[in-house]
Amino acid sequence: MKQKKVAVILAGCGVFDGAEIQETVFSLLSIEKDGAAYEVYAPDIEQKHVINHITGQEMSEKRNVLTEAARITRGKIQPLTKLKTSNFDALILPGGFGVAKNLCTFAFDGADCKVNPEVESVVKEFHKAKKPIGALCISPVLLTKIIGNTKVTIGNDPDASQAVEKMGGTHITTTHAEVVIDKENKIATTPCYMLDATISQIAEGADKVVKETLELILDTPLDESIER
Amino acid sequence: MKQKKVAVILAGCGVFDGAEIQETVFSLLSIEKDGAAYEVYAPDIEQKHVINHITGQEMSEKRNVLTEAARITRGKIQPLTKLKTSNFDALILPGGFGVAKNLCTFAFDGADCKVNPEVESVVKEFHKAKKPIGALCISPVLLTKIIGNTKVTIGNDPDASQAVEKMGGTHITTTHAEVVIDKENKIATTPCYMLDATISQIAEGADKVVKETLELILDTPLDESIER
Repeated sequence: MKQKKVAVILAGCGVFDGAEIQETVFSLLSIEKDGAAYEVYAPDIEQKHVINHITGQEMSEKRNVLTEAARITRGKIQPLTKLKTSNFDALILPGGFGVAKNLCTFAFDGADCKVNPEVESVVKEFHKAKKPIGALCISPVLLTKIIGNTKVTIGNDPDASQAVEKMGGTHITTTHAEVVIDKENKIATTPCYMLDATISQIAEGADKVVKETLELILDTPLDESIER
Repeated sequence: MKQKKVAVILAGCGVFDGAEIQETVFSLLSIEKDGAAYEVYAPDIEQKHVINHITGQEMSEKRNVLTEAARITRGKIQPLTKLKTSNFDALILPGGFGVAKNLCTFAFDGADCKVNPEVESVVKEFHKAKKPIGALCISPVLLTKIIGNTKVTIGNDPDASQAVEKMGGTHITTTHAEVVIDKENKIATTPCYMLDATISQIAEGADKVVKETLELILDTPLDESIER
């Protein structure tokens, strides 16, 4: 059987203005441990803002989402415009406020948020091709905004779960390392740091959502079946 | 038995100018999985420089080691001056060029490097108190520079291993996830990204060096023995 290939999209580097670092690292580890390969992408855009992660205050500087995300992957990253859906079997979206600030405007506009067009296009392509998408933390709101009628979890946050319903999705309340699987849309979601969590719980959540996402590939071999 | 407490010192956020992110995340996970607790510290100093992690080029901006390191720990970090050796049973030093650029000048001066005085003081205190120190990647050179006659590994890099010997240490060549234990000095070291490695190999290396470091605590209960 051919090795599965997973695309990962990052929103920067750091929970408060970019990608949640621990969720990202554990997702990459899990993909590799499950025998799949990954390539990492990020939009080549300016961050919404830069947050001092100690004080929570905005800093008076500018940073680029792609350039910062490269810190997590030791430089091995490509601009999102280079992502070819046909090269991959699945998509993983780690969380972090960057998803709700840089990839869409959910942190500011809730259910009325706008989505970055490159991100929207990629998610639509994976969905249309029936290739599974795994989303951690706050990332599921992005999927519901783009796809609409989805079944997802963002843990138990009242505002975010109401927004999911308002955008046409169904929200399932979950706790640590629980994964909600939307078989119809081939979406697997888990709350991770949307809940107060220990680092072990994050590792477990990432591990499970990656595993479930990869299993959704097996359900529909599609174009792989041609190659067998 | 009382829960073991581990201090972790970071050198920023990102392999080329700060702490290696994956090594850091896996070290923290391993400490927790082994039943210990951790607190993270970093010196409140300006980074030597800021590197674009895609191009490898220096960027014309300034960043603070403590503020950037906070991205990995979601803000839970303290200035290194607050670290009280008496509160901890062991010390862990993840790698990354930041260790050789911000915590000492090894990246520029090799065996003749200077060490940040706060870092030097903390390492000397742990060593004097016979509390074990675990070091990943390039961090062992820092220990050899400070302590002198040590047995460590930085993998198989000829320049770094020669520098270890020049600084009074003994270098042991190792491969992925091998740990060198210097029982006399209570130091455990492993190469991690000093070798070309996969993310799984880094997770395994961090796991093993943390475990060995914690086991060196058990060898000398010292002040804990009073509380039993």
